Amino acid sequence: MRTSGPLWTGSLVLERILPVNVLGRWPARCVSPQRLRRQVLAILASWGMTEDAASITADHLLYADLCGIDSHGVGMLLHYHRAFREGALTIPAEVRVVSEGPGSALLDGGGGLGHVPADRAMRLAIGKARETGAAAVAVRNSGHFGAAGSYVGMATEAGLLGLATTNTLPPAVIPTFGVEPMLGTNAFAFAAPSAAGADFVLDMATSTASLGKSWNRWRAGRSIPPGWAIDSRGKPIRNGRVAASQRRLTPLGSSPENASHKGYGLAAMVEILCSALPGGHGVGHFFFAVDPTRFRDEGDVESAVDALGARLRATPPIDPGRPVLVAGDPEREARERRLESGIPLSRSVIEDMRTVARGSGVPFDL
Amino acid sequence: MRTSGPLWTGSLVLERILPVNVLGRWPARCVSPQRLRRQVLAILASWGMTEDAASITADHLLYADLCGIDSHGVGMLLHYHRAFREGALTIPAEVRVVSEGPGSALLDGGGGLGHVPADRAMRLAIGKARETGAAAVAVRNSGHFGAAGSYVGMATEAGLLGLATTNTLPPAVIPTFGVEPMLGTNAFAFAAPSAAGADFVLDMATSTASLGKSWNRWRAGRSIPPGWAIDSRGKPIRNGRVAASQRRLTPLGSSPENASHKGYGLAAMVEILCSALPGGHGVGHFFFAVDPTRFRDEGDVESAVDALGARLRATPPIDPGRPVLVAGDPEREARERRLESGIPLSRSVIEDMRTVARGSGVPFDL
Repeated sequence: MRTSGPLWTGSLVLERILPVNVLGRWPARCVSPQRLRRQVLAILASWGMTEDAASITADHLLYADLCGIDSHGVGMLLHYHRAFREGALTIPAEVRVVSEGPGSALLDGGGGLGHVPADRAMRLAIGKARETGAAAVAVRNSGHFGAAGSYVGMATEAGLLGLATTNTLPPAVIPTFGVEPMLGTNAFAFAAPSAAGADFVLDMATSTASLGKSWNRWRAGRSIPPGWAIDSRGKPIRNGRVAASQRRLTPLGSSPENASHKGYGLAAMVEILCSALPGGHGVGHFFFAVDPTRFRDEGDVESAVDALGARLRATPPIDPGRPVLVAGDPEREARERRLESGIPLSRSVIEDMRTVARGSGVPFDL
Repeated sequence: MRTSGPLWTGSLVLERILPVNVLGRWPARCVSPQRLRRQVLAILASWGMTEDAASITADHLLYADLCGIDSHGVGMLLHYHRAFREGALTIPAEVRVVSEGPGSALLDGGGGLGHVPADRAMRLAIGKARETGAAAVAVRNSGHFGAAGSYVGMATEAGLLGLATTNTLPPAVIPTFGVEPMLGTNAFAFAAPSAAGADFVLDMATSTASLGKSWNRWRAGRSIPPGWAIDSRGKPIRNGRVAASQRRLTPLGSSPENASHKGYGLAAMVEILCSALPGGHGVGHFFFAVDPTRFRDEGDVESAVDALGARLRATPPIDPGRPVLVAGDPEREARERRLESGIPLSRSVIEDMRTVARGSGVPFDL
């Protein structure tokens, strides 16, 4: 069993950067995506990553930073760096197709970061779905792949519907009725293309909240809601720092009476798709693409997706200041804003990047 | 737009059988599956359903009754009957394949009940997945198809992984931040085969709870948890009858702070797969099958599914009297019990069946 998984999961990240001043969370600088990308490329190249692999990895990291999913972007580099130096992360990694059929494929990630094998897997799924109508591709022996939404976005860009899932390590989520963490925050993403530039993009962990959100609440001096985490006797934890260190997050649904067995079931489904199906050790992924033109005339599915979105956005909100959104809206808004005015990096992320650049022997230029 | 959908959804059902005595919920009689099946077949035949279609419909209804999913079994017949008499349900329905590719197909349900087109769709998905590795089949212009778990069970019986989703009518679930019901309780099911007779079967509505559960709490003289439903100002409703009549169920997650945007996103995903993708009016379905032998050696995926299940069942529970379960366990236990000692039918279901038999001109024999 590979033991490297924990080293590049978002949760451990947060434990390692402690103690961090609350001020460390505040945006300190806005950096253009181009500049940030150059910095990332220099670092990855210094680790021995090929130019192609570095470019793909940087693109998926930048996707997260542009979309406001700050927990899955360049903020991960320090942890990737540590894993690499500890020998827990293979670079360059040999990514290969283990087996392939007309509508399926199995890839091996070679024990490296997940972005490159995940990118290749989704590309394969898209190509095969165009040939057959639908395709499923799984990846074994992989690593952290950033934001799942980045891969389903590849599908919608190609005009397809896409699904992407990954398991995560180490366990941080309790099963319903249980008290020990048994599953990761296992991510699930689904996207459908729009005709109006408003793709539906659902990108979610199958837990109620992430360890990172618990930390952030604690840093901000606020308690966490009673539905996020439990202690060893099953009682809600309200202190975000305690919750994150005990690693007993609830599955989506929070409590048995509010149907946490559904979130638990979804987390177990992701585990099956990403671990039981591809085999291998540690982190795996699963991708699925469907070609809408096999079902309806060109553009009809996209128009129906837009019509659904429009109906949902137009429904009256409880609070007029908080309109009803559709999955993908917050990320799209962040992306538009950040493409224009740059990516706000917190002090702690800038310091992390400086540390990584120095440790990698490349100039720090942010 | 077809307006018939509401007539055979589980929610309206419950409104129509009111007022029903609390005693009506109690099991009044245990009936053998064979006997219950004969009664169902006689009723469906009297409506003009072909022998094949009636047999398939009865099998899927019986699946639900055997598995303890009483809300989706023969208890639906009264509502199907009413819809049929009101002209909202076409019997016999012409189910046809609209288009087909190597790994995909689109079916039209012909405005009838959903069991037959859904059964055919999953069979097609299984056959195609065996040829290509993975396949997706959607159904348009369909109706209530019973329990989604019944179709993913077809996939595991064939040794495949399966996914089945359906949208439902009328809307009963609010979007996060919204106050009007905009989506159905849209069901999502996923199954993976086991080597040990313990298939993983997740079968869930994407709402926190169903309208039926709210009614049941009210009938039992109990309030509902604050996370199930809201009133027109967004405040929790605690009276199950009020909650069910107002039709403002929360998406899985219950509240914005406990990530109801994820349940809302899943419900919208189901709507896209079952409505935007196939087109048509009213109720649609989506099925997906994956052949595990394209990924690993025969039996390896099944063993890994079993190993995951064993690890989860062995984890310590909060309450020793309430062990940790795996999706599919409660249904399997109910099935074993009911195959042995019969299906317990409540007084209200027996009276409903008597009404349907009488109205259909067939002998009542339960």
